[in-house]
Amino acid sequence: MSEIAVIGGDVRQAATAEALVEAGHKVCVFGIDAQLLQGAVFCANLSRALMHAEAVVLPLPVTHDGEHIPCDAGDVPVRFSEILHKVQAGTVLMGGYIPQPFFEMARAQDVPLYDYYTSEEVTLRNACATAEGAIAVAIANTDTVLCGLHAAVIGFGRIGRMLARLLYALGVHVTVYARSSEARTWAEIEGYAAAELCDGGVPASIVSGFGIVFNTVPARVLCRARLTEMSKDTLLVELASKPGGFDPADARDAGLRTVYAQGLPGRYAPVSAGRAIAVRVLKILREREESAHESNG
Amino acid sequence: MSEIAVIGGDVRQAATAEALVEAGHKVCVFGIDAQLLQGAVFCANLSRALMHAEAVVLPLPVTHDGEHIPCDAGDVPVRFSEILHKVQAGTVLMGGYIPQPFFEMARAQDVPLYDYYTSEEVTLRNACATAEGAIAVAIANTDTVLCGLHAAVIGFGRIGRMLARLLYALGVHVTVYARSSEARTWAEIEGYAAAELCDGGVPASIVSGFGIVFNTVPARVLCRARLTEMSKDTLLVELASKPGGFDPADARDAGLRTVYAQGLPGRYAPVSAGRAIAVRVLKILREREESAHESNG
Amino acid sequence: MSEIAVIGGDVRQAATAEALVEAGHKVCVFGIDAQLLQGAVFCANLSRALMHAEAVVLPLPVTHDGEHIPCDAGDVPVRFSEILHKVQAGTVLMGGYIPQPFFEMARAQDVPLYDYYTSEEVTLRNACATAEGAIAVAIANTDTVLCGLHAAVIGFGRIGRMLARLLYALGVHVTVYARSSEARTWAEIEGYAAAELCDGGVPASIVSGFGIVFNTVPARVLCRARLTEMSKDTLLVELASKPGGFDPADARDAGLRTVYAQGLPGRYAPVSAGRAIAVRVLKILREREESAHESNG
Amino acid sequence: MSEIAVIGGDVRQAATAEALVEAGHKVCVFGIDAQLLQGAVFCANLSRALMHAEAVVLPLPVTHDGEHIPCDAGDVPVRFSEILHKVQAGTVLMGGYIPQPFFEMARAQDVPLYDYYTSEEVTLRNACATAEGAIAVAIANTDTVLCGLHAAVIGFGRIGRMLARLLYALGVHVTVYARSSEARTWAEIEGYAAAELCDGGVPASIVSGFGIVFNTVPARVLCRARLTEMSKDTLLVELASKPGGFDPADARDAGLRTVYAQGLPGRYAPVSAGRAIAVRVLKILREREESAHESNG
Repeated sequence: MSEIAVIGGDVRQAATAEALVEAGHKVCVFGIDAQLLQGAVFCANLSRALMHAEAVVLPLPVTHDGEHIPCDAGDVPVRFSEILHKVQAGTVLMGGYIPQPFFEMARAQDVPLYDYYTSEEVTLRNACATAEGAIAVAIANTDTVLCGLHAAVIGFGRIGRMLARLLYALGVHVTVYARSSEARTWAEIEGYAAAELCDGGVPASIVSGFGIVFNTVPARVLCRARLTEMSKDTLLVELASKPGGFDPADARDAGLRTVYAQGLPGRYAPVSAGRAIAVRVLKILREREESAHESNG
Repeated sequence: MSEIAVIGGDVRQAATAEALVEAGHKVCVFGIDAQLLQGAVFCANLSRALMHAEAVVLPLPVTHDGEHIPCDAGDVPVRFSEILHKVQAGTVLMGGYIPQPFFEMARAQDVPLYDYYTSEEVTLRNACATAEGAIAVAIANTDTVLCGLHAAVIGFGRIGRMLARLLYALGVHVTVYARSSEARTWAEIEGYAAAELCDGGVPASIVSGFGIVFNTVPARVLCRARLTEMSKDTLLVELASKPGGFDPADARDAGLRTVYAQGLPGRYAPVSAGRAIAVRVLKILREREESAHESNG
Repeated sequence: MSEIAVIGGDVRQAATAEALVEAGHKVCVFGIDAQLLQGAVFCANLSRALMHAEAVVLPLPVTHDGEHIPCDAGDVPVRFSEILHKVQAGTVLMGGYIPQPFFEMARAQDVPLYDYYTSEEVTLRNACATAEGAIAVAIANTDTVLCGLHAAVIGFGRIGRMLARLLYALGVHVTVYARSSEARTWAEIEGYAAAELCDGGVPASIVSGFGIVFNTVPARVLCRARLTEMSKDTLLVELASKPGGFDPADARDAGLRTVYAQGLPGRYAPVSAGRAIAVRVLKILREREESAHESNG
Repeated sequence: MSEIAVIGGDVRQAATAEALVEAGHKVCVFGIDAQLLQGAVFCANLSRALMHAEAVVLPLPVTHDGEHIPCDAGDVPVRFSEILHKVQAGTVLMGGYIPQPFFEMARAQDVPLYDYYTSEEVTLRNACATAEGAIAVAIANTDTVLCGLHAAVIGFGRIGRMLARLLYALGVHVTVYARSSEARTWAEIEGYAAAELCDGGVPASIVSGFGIVFNTVPARVLCRARLTEMSKDTLLVELASKPGGFDPADARDAGLRTVYAQGLPGRYAPVSAGRAIAVRVLKILREREESAHESNG
């Protein structure tokens, strides 16, 4: 059993804390809404929370402004630099989407810092939540049933692959656009049509006829000309992060309905996301322990 | 080509009208928002709309108050009796969920009146929209991913069967509660666990462990005791019409989260619902024509 | 615990006997290969097996020649009439596919006789085994992968419905031919294309383009003209019982490859079939007991 | 249009030749059964077939004995060295599973030699055929229906992943054993249970309770102890190449039923396998042409 401090964050972070409690650890929290979790020790101030912590878990993302840790509760803003100064020697820090300057600050103070979000498992769990969220978005934003619709899924990475599988299972006719021939072969074997994604993005004269188009590629795969060719009934769902697959202004000019569906895991499955982070946090601790044993042994 | 009057209703009714236009008929509308459809003739008053109509399509449901036809547009309320008086001899009337007194009024005036909603195809299309809507509701109202969750589906009629299939495809562990052993055998063959639904509803001591429970049976299958046994994390989704599978007060007392998800087809797939009605309307007209030919021949 | 005699039959019947043993009954067998099952009492002759039996289970089918019970073991042929004479008063007889004359003979002797095969559960379990067997037949008899193939399923009863679901899950493009519009609507909602089956069977000019055609309808739905139109690469799988969906001579003349796939449950899943029969046997006994209690009560 | 020689092989190789003909090439064949394909030029001897060939396609595998090319037709054995000597300057050779000495011989003669089987697309198409074949093997070798059975899939590479998906779709309860936590996470998200594969293979005390176990890992993952723990009803299907996941002697001693299911693509989907090779052959030719243009340009 370790003592772990969980600082700041939202309902996802609360789920992380709860999962750590369930795994048998003493969890001291600061900056989270007390209503969201139970079994943890709520600390009056940051110093108390960090006092005996062997590990400190920061939120996902660890910062919005490059300086502070986002906190749902507590009226005093918490700086990342403050945490660095207050942790004890040997304590390990973890967070999600950690910017480069934070790593440099931590290295200067000799504090080990890990990004739990670079873990494949966490990314996969988030992709699963994103794919499910995209299904909910699609059902809620079309005025027909999905069953029988033709849908395009642009990109066949984690999210594209999971989404295509769910759509197919709902009776949707799925066409996957992917760059690599390997991805297109997988797509065909899983029951979808497959089409090539070229350097210029989705090729001409193919995009009409889709009731819904999901983009998962964070690059301009749908140019102005492609959007103009689409039927006005097409729903465009943007799942990729900036800059996204198309220019919002182009989509507006083309008269298309669009949904910008970012941050779906936090909205649709915060607890799953939080639990996946807890699993990763415990794995990092275990691996550190093992390598400590080995170097001592 | 027939001339068909479409009176009142919402976006579903507009979709019905549009599908009739696409099928090549002249469609005169009254009481629908003009923004919702194109290709139809908007009439200034009810009489004009009914003047040459061979068939009159009324909304689903045909009335809320047992007297008037619900209209999204137009400031003068339309009575069912008024329509009966204004239609020409030989014109056929159709509506959805028609109450018994309306049938009697129509018979007294010798006007043929059909309920398009009793058609199996319309019902199936609505069930499909309900099942998809239930998926969207489930994704949006759980704070975990559905994948890996244990779900109960009470009832294995049209909606229960479609819903179980979608849930299974999303990686949910599905248990179907059904009264008939035939339904339970189907459920097992389609990959779900099956449990008996007794006269008293869901049997004791089984309901715990479900992350989500969908009820599709319009009868009290979940008594107060059953609700109390459920985990507080369980989400209860009511899909059945009145009286529903449980007493809302009991659910509240048991501390359960509940979603009352009625009218999903109108919310999540109005155009599909409307199109299914149009298909049925045309089939009724065709069958009447055929039987007229036969009795003449 | 009852004493049950199990007479004759093959590996299916042995599975029935074994399931009855597992359910806690004393099972006396005669005419089954002793290697196939354990836990039962093997009797030296028919009279011994029937001596104390409260119920007698006969094979599926109960007879091939209208006179004898088919037996895998034992060198003396067993007549149905002999069993009728030897059973004690009050003993109940059960068999599968019982011909009408057997019922009359039993009534004359005042012996209650039940056909366990008319039970919906037994039929559904057999349909499941048939659908799986048809998948194995299809994989083994095509020289391409099923994934990506176009297949026609003629008929959407139990077998057609289960088969379409499995094919779709394997990535096959499925077209269902069905007579009722209700069945076609179900087919579309489950993700398949649907086409009408007319009085004359499969309509003209549609059948080309299928890599495989499964017939489940026990009536001539594929006339000579239809078979001639098919591509020579098409594999024709006959799943229906006599007279079947097409004339074998026509198929041969048309140069089509055909597989006559009858009796699949016995070949591919005899134990499942046998267990389903045991479930039904026990249910018949329970229902008889209950009605005896009621009439006594 | 190129002239391509196709030498030796079986029905797969014939399908490759046929696909090359369909793609518009002149195809000269030698050593293939003439009944298997049409549209190709059958050559009386090897020299004639190679005379104008720009590319030569050899079978999969290219040799069994390290010296000769396997031929279904023709009575004179063909040596690889003979082909090397007879091809014209600039001709490219291709084959599947090419042994290292062949590459060295080709380099010595300055003949370009490609292994088409290292292509991801060919491997994926073969994996698909293997997964489907494994389903057929499972249906044919169990005496119950697959639906409702518990199955273990050891390994979650291409074949394991495709097989798990098909089994799940057939209503099987699937447990995936995989080494990497990433693979296990994918497995869970796709609806299966996931278990760890350790250095010593499948961990103790988990293997009982499976009706069927598929191995896809070419390493001893099932030790003697594990096999002994399994139920005698378990069917063991070996899909991996030598040395396979278990010792056949151990399996026999443990009294387990085993199926050694190698070479499934050639048995169950030779035409699909052959077509995938043709696609790869044409891609290699195109890439060579492009790079020739570039170095000339």
